[in-house]
Amino acid sequence: MRKGEMTRQRIVAAAAPIFNQRGFAGCSMQDVMEVTGLEKGGLYRHFASKEELAAEAFKFAISQSRRSRTDDLGHIENSVEKLRFAVKRFIETPSAMRGGCPLMNTAIDADDGNPVLRELASKAIRNWRERLAEIVEAGVKGGEIRKGTKPQRIANSMIATLEGALMISRIEGANRALRDARITLNEMLDGISATRVQ
Amino acid sequence: MRKGEMTRQRIVAAAAPIFNQRGFAGCSMQDVMEVTGLEKGGLYRHFASKEELAAEAFKFAISQSRRSRTDDLGHIENSVEKLRFAVKRFIETPSAMRGGCPLMNTAIDADDGNPVLRELASKAIRNWRERLAEIVEAGVKGGEIRKGTKPQRIANSMIATLEGALMISRIEGANRALRDARITLNEMLDGISATRVQ
Repeated sequence: MRKGEMTRQRIVAAAAPIFNQRGFAGCSMQDVMEVTGLEKGGLYRHFASKEELAAEAFKFAISQSRRSRTDDLGHIENSVEKLRFAVKRFIETPSAMRGGCPLMNTAIDADDGNPVLRELASKAIRNWRERLAEIVEAGVKGGEIRKGTKPQRIANSMIATLEGALMISRIEGANRALRDARITLNEMLDGISATRVQ
Repeated sequence: MRKGEMTRQRIVAAAAPIFNQRGFAGCSMQDVMEVTGLEKGGLYRHFASKEELAAEAFKFAISQSRRSRTDDLGHIENSVEKLRFAVKRFIETPSAMRGGCPLMNTAIDADDGNPVLRELASKAIRNWRERLAEIVEAGVKGGEIRKGTKPQRIANSMIATLEGALMISRIEGANRALRDARITLNEMLDGISATRVQ
């Protein structure tokens, strides 16, 4: 990796938690200068605008979240167990980065005006949903999940319930809502399991 | 109502959508002056600080949401049907005020530093959960909902799934996630109904 690219990545990694905590409007290039120790000129040599840096910072933040949400499920064979594990991991480590879930932050921050961030958030949601939906589809094909189960609905419901529970937990400063969400999602997964004892 | 009180309420009603859209940091007293047509002196005669006005604006916004979320369920007799109706109404009218759900906005806005707003949001969540939990409890007592059903868990799961689906819908500019949430929550309610056909 070339030095310029390394500096660029260092800036992104340092800026990501600040953008994540304070939002696009609440984080200035001055803030990024302070945390990186770079001069204004140095910063603008790597990023044409705050918009560009914010977009890279969001991508970095979301890649950290994705790792803890849908990666490394390959060692689990059964599809339903894969989904259960994804739920468990989210509950135990709801957000990898300071400032909470970047998706939720950007959802609120971006829907009143920042189209680039909004598009990135939309893409991240789509990606997360597709990863979960693929597991459901594979489960239906493999006979582990009941025929007729709608992969998109299961995926949307998992994401909605987890993110909503995270929101409640953040407001309340307690993880009761996350624990409740886990029980409810596990019951939903019981319901779609083909091997469920009725 | 005295004239002073009327002016105060008019300011709150005008400021609420701006605070809801732009957040506490993103909304200035200047913005409120513009939307109300009042001078700075006039504004500060009614509110000692931006903090005080923001708190009143949040209470106003949340009272609007509450009306469309948990009020007027008295005409429905069956507890499970009451909960279904609450889900339906949320899906159809997810937020009464410009800028989206005030709870979600304040959750993100307040958790990095505004303790008064955070406490108000926490109280609003608790209130919403209690209203739903009471319906579940009444249903268990009345034999409409299965014994052993945990009211707090059902309430938390409903709020989490609805708010999370609203978040996805806001990011995507589509209401597919809300429709999926409705189906999933109705299945959860089927599951706790005492009269469910197994």
